[in-house]
Amino acid sequence: MNPFQQEYQARTQANLDAALSNPDTPKKLRSAMRYSVLAGGKRIRALLVYAAGFTVQAPLRRLDAVASALECIHCYSLIHDDLPAMDDDNLRRGQATSHIQFDEATAILAGDALHALAFELISAESTGLSDQQSRAITHKLASCAGHTGMIGGQMLDILATEQNLDREQLENVHRRKTGALINAAVICGTLCGDQVAPDLLAMMDKYANCIGLAFQVMDDVLDVESSTEVLGKSSGADIERGKSTYPALIGLAESRDLALNLYQQAVESIASIGDNSAHLADLAALVINRDH
Amino acid sequence: MNPFQQEYQARTQANLDAALSNPDTPKKLRSAMRYSVLAGGKRIRALLVYAAGFTVQAPLRRLDAVASALECIHCYSLIHDDLPAMDDDNLRRGQATSHIQFDEATAILAGDALHALAFELISAESTGLSDQQSRAITHKLASCAGHTGMIGGQMLDILATEQNLDREQLENVHRRKTGALINAAVICGTLCGDQVAPDLLAMMDKYANCIGLAFQVMDDVLDVESSTEVLGKSSGADIERGKSTYPALIGLAESRDLALNLYQQAVESIASIGDNSAHLADLAALVINRDH
Repeated sequence: MNPFQQEYQARTQANLDAALSNPDTPKKLRSAMRYSVLAGGKRIRALLVYAAGFTVQAPLRRLDAVASALECIHCYSLIHDDLPAMDDDNLRRGQATSHIQFDEATAILAGDALHALAFELISAESTGLSDQQSRAITHKLASCAGHTGMIGGQMLDILATEQNLDREQLENVHRRKTGALINAAVICGTLCGDQVAPDLLAMMDKYANCIGLAFQVMDDVLDVESSTEVLGKSSGADIERGKSTYPALIGLAESRDLALNLYQQAVESIASIGDNSAHLADLAALVINRDH
Repeated sequence: MNPFQQEYQARTQANLDAALSNPDTPKKLRSAMRYSVLAGGKRIRALLVYAAGFTVQAPLRRLDAVASALECIHCYSLIHDDLPAMDDDNLRRGQATSHIQFDEATAILAGDALHALAFELISAESTGLSDQQSRAITHKLASCAGHTGMIGGQMLDILATEQNLDREQLENVHRRKTGALINAAVICGTLCGDQVAPDLLAMMDKYANCIGLAFQVMDDVLDVESSTEVLGKSSGADIERGKSTYPALIGLAESRDLALNLYQQAVESIASIGDNSAHLADLAALVINRDH
């Protein structure tokens, strides 16, 4: 990670710590929320919020709220995804998953609480967002996280187990399951700016869709190539669950080529923004060069 | 139910039907969302939104969105609450619960999708809400539904199983678990008005807190007195689960007296609003006179 990424990863961690320190939250619930959220992770969605916001000179206070909200939604989805009735995973970010560390009921509630907290954060007066910005960001985040976005993708992903998807079907699952929230991060970060031109939003949308798909292609590749230790979650899990993946469909080498190609498209989409887009380009590189 | 209640119950049903007809939602997910939401229920939260909104002459279009959102949040909480890891209930509103009718993974996702949908509905441009109203309603709903409100209450409720709570502790659980969302319904309905005086909000808050607690006291009473057929869910479940209840703590007769007393306080809180408050008073009566 470069200095920008390190700085804003640490900033995100501090903001989330503060957001999860409400003494009015029942202690066990707060512990479970903190356990999963503060365990770390790459914070790619938060970094995308900051990087996108910097292209439109959005004030930090606005970006802080939106970055924290994105991480809350991402984290809630991981907690629920790991549940026994879903992917039944014991390990996440190198530590026991929430339902193992606590219990299933607490894990379900911690996820639900983080989901609501995301919307509480972006609608708070203290964010410095205008009413119009707060509303637009709420609508974008809710629709990307919901039935036609991330949750829709998780449903399709479950239904696809033990099925052989073709490439178009697999891309549809991935665009929703992972892509929608990455798109929300980039667009919501951009919407924190005071004057956002429609053509900038179109470029950002293209960039986000390219790295969103690249992210999932690399996830599939890493599931095959990386070890459980490096991943911080069980490697080889996709194959074991009979999930369709890019390596299974088009091979490992071609999957890597596809990710590289998507990276190049992403960087091209934002090239005309100028110097301000450097952090976005670096994040696109991070997505395809990561080892976990 | 009186004609007002019947009319707006039917209106809520039609609005929810429309909100859950997006062809872009994966079919199984849409089926599960529709199965639980359209199964009916009393729609007390939706009716409270309309009744509160009518005291401030709020346009119907705004109230429609907010009423649907409240029912989405309520319904998601029931789906998750019924899960095997939570209350493990097989019957709800006279039909099999979501995880029995579908499966656990689908039930978890249907709940998550309804949660996000609530925020999508109230932030949509088509609601006719101003940006300021949409934001204030989002913040109120998210905080009442989240870690310090409804989900906090569910956590406390689970932790209290097999414990003997005193009256103050029991009231704290109930105020969060049931009261917070009823409060959100009344306040969010009121916030749909164009000019809302702070003292009106204070009266509404008092009214909502009284009927919220009365609602839960009556829930405890009905769990003892009513049959599974009339309730549409398993009767006697609280006692079986070792939950603290008002009848167990202060007796059945005193619990009924408490509910009646709370009803009277609720009606008094809004008496000075005038004719416009009749629907709210009727709903307070419905809360304590219901048989399920």
